[in-house]
Amino acid sequence: MSEEKRTEIGEIGEFGLIDRIAEKFEPKNEKTVKGIGDDTAVYDLGDKYLLTTSDMLLEGVHFDLSYMPLPHLGYKAVAVNVSDIAAMNGIPKQITVNLGLSNRFSVEAVEALYEGIKAACDEYNVDLVGGDTTSSSAGLVISVTAIGEVDRDKVVYRNGAMENDILCVTGDLGGAFVGLQILEREKAEYLANPDMQPKLDKYDYVVGRQLKPKARMDIIHEFKDLGIQPTSMIDVSDGLASEAFHLCKQSGLGVAIYEDKIPIEKQSFETAAEFSIDPNSCALNGGEDYELLFTIGQDDFEKIKNHADIHTIGYMQAQKKGRTFVTRNQNVVELQAQGWKHF
Amino acid sequence: MSEEKRTEIGEIGEFGLIDRIAEKFEPKNEKTVKGIGDDTAVYDLGDKYLLTTSDMLLEGVHFDLSYMPLPHLGYKAVAVNVSDIAAMNGIPKQITVNLGLSNRFSVEAVEALYEGIKAACDEYNVDLVGGDTTSSSAGLVISVTAIGEVDRDKVVYRNGAMENDILCVTGDLGGAFVGLQILEREKAEYLANPDMQPKLDKYDYVVGRQLKPKARMDIIHEFKDLGIQPTSMIDVSDGLASEAFHLCKQSGLGVAIYEDKIPIEKQSFETAAEFSIDPNSCALNGGEDYELLFTIGQDDFEKIKNHADIHTIGYMQAQKKGRTFVTRNQNVVELQAQGWKHF
Repeated sequence: MSEEKRTEIGEIGEFGLIDRIAEKFEPKNEKTVKGIGDDTAVYDLGDKYLLTTSDMLLEGVHFDLSYMPLPHLGYKAVAVNVSDIAAMNGIPKQITVNLGLSNRFSVEAVEALYEGIKAACDEYNVDLVGGDTTSSSAGLVISVTAIGEVDRDKVVYRNGAMENDILCVTGDLGGAFVGLQILEREKAEYLANPDMQPKLDKYDYVVGRQLKPKARMDIIHEFKDLGIQPTSMIDVSDGLASEAFHLCKQSGLGVAIYEDKIPIEKQSFETAAEFSIDPNSCALNGGEDYELLFTIGQDDFEKIKNHADIHTIGYMQAQKKGRTFVTRNQNVVELQAQGWKHF
Repeated sequence: MSEEKRTEIGEIGEFGLIDRIAEKFEPKNEKTVKGIGDDTAVYDLGDKYLLTTSDMLLEGVHFDLSYMPLPHLGYKAVAVNVSDIAAMNGIPKQITVNLGLSNRFSVEAVEALYEGIKAACDEYNVDLVGGDTTSSSAGLVISVTAIGEVDRDKVVYRNGAMENDILCVTGDLGGAFVGLQILEREKAEYLANPDMQPKLDKYDYVVGRQLKPKARMDIIHEFKDLGIQPTSMIDVSDGLASEAFHLCKQSGLGVAIYEDKIPIEKQSFETAAEFSIDPNSCALNGGEDYELLFTIGQDDFEKIKNHADIHTIGYMQAQKKGRTFVTRNQNVVELQAQGWKHF
């Protein structure tokens, strides 16, 4: 192919690549309600919608086995897919797991991985129903698909936000990113001095956020109990800014986010300071927190205002007002989505 | 983990590993009709069953890009999953594709891969509805999940064969395996002499069987037209012997297969002879033909006996009679499943 045009993927980016592919794959099946472009695909079952999502984790790209215990990896591979089902306001039902294993993995290692998969299946009440296991000439590969269900009238897309809707996020943000910094630092220290014992106690919360993120199915069940129907929703896998941009783009709106409203745990804050990185940047651009970012109509505000784990961080505004970030000292700046970048 | 017990995966094999994992994952969801252990999982939708299957192809293990054109790879990755849906007597509806790409892949290369995926989507009438694209530090990884549907009363499992049922196979067998031998030989010659032009014309059929296998959805539609309900079915991915063993094991039966009934194309036969390998061994143990192996009740024999592309190759017998192979000269020997092995 030496004489043909060569465009590097980096030139158009992952989302650019997806857009380029997606335009050639317009759904044809009348029961395909949603194809590429939301947290899951949607298939019409009548009163219910079927939700399908799939994510692949590759050794050396998404995880490092020198600090990621195999049970945690198994758990996380399931949780990130369940999180996508949650982001549609759905309930997960079944998963399949495809594994690529090099010969350095023993049966016991595979069982340790499945121990974590089992823990996630039990926690989220899903059945492992298939997949394949093959040898891999490179590292460990784990590809999980989850299917779930949602009542037809309860499905939540990324594109349903309305002007003046309140922007909310669950839990806290930035922890998974600073946890990763700790793990990378400990690894470097261990490589320099293998007799060293890792000192992780002080960082238990942020390290846990990185190694064992939870899918917020608890919130989905609470939405039902509280009678809340979000107008749009997405899970926070790439960082708050990037996810807010997806809601804006698909809903045709702008957004205003308030710096002082972004929920950041004390340990995340302190650990970020240790690395001289801005805690807000960790929340905005760090990723892997797997919290839910969603919008609600103003009428629903009363239902969530006293909820300890749901935080209102801004509101949706007209597209022409842009995507703005209101700093602690009331400066209004343009919101940036930098993705995984050190500061 | 140096002091812990270490069992090599090779000691128990892929199927042994799956059995060991499956026993810890008994389905809990009442709508999970079938978990691990058939061509697809089955989920109860009421009048219909939802079918889910997932397969992963890894560079260096399942394909070699030095002779596998990217569009063919994309097509094949979809077709092998559609073939699993077919093996349940189902109709595929949606697929997701997860890709791991190293930076040697350009946007144009990814588009070439998706060209093949698109051709398969068009041919099998399925929608591409999602998946993710990530970087890979090793080779190309492609993991496809297919979902499909089947009428509840039409689903076919591996475990439904009855004593005296007729064993049938579609198309012809062994071609994909000898095609692979040709491609490997041409690659070796090319590496020895890069100016050489590959001479593949003479081997077009068998090379095509390896590079672009078709899922036999045509047969599934014919079953409906002809009013045939197979009693058990599986697709031929690992070789006739291995697949027949799955039907036997799950149906609690033995089988008798007749050597002179196994359909082998002239080109497969001649090419096998060129390599001094037994054409029947290619059919029995070669794999990747993606034909359908199924059983029918004797009452259905009239409906298929004149079908040009369905071949009766034996019958199911009591378990105590074993798994037998009747040679051309009427010797009755024990059927062996060797898997991918050169002879």
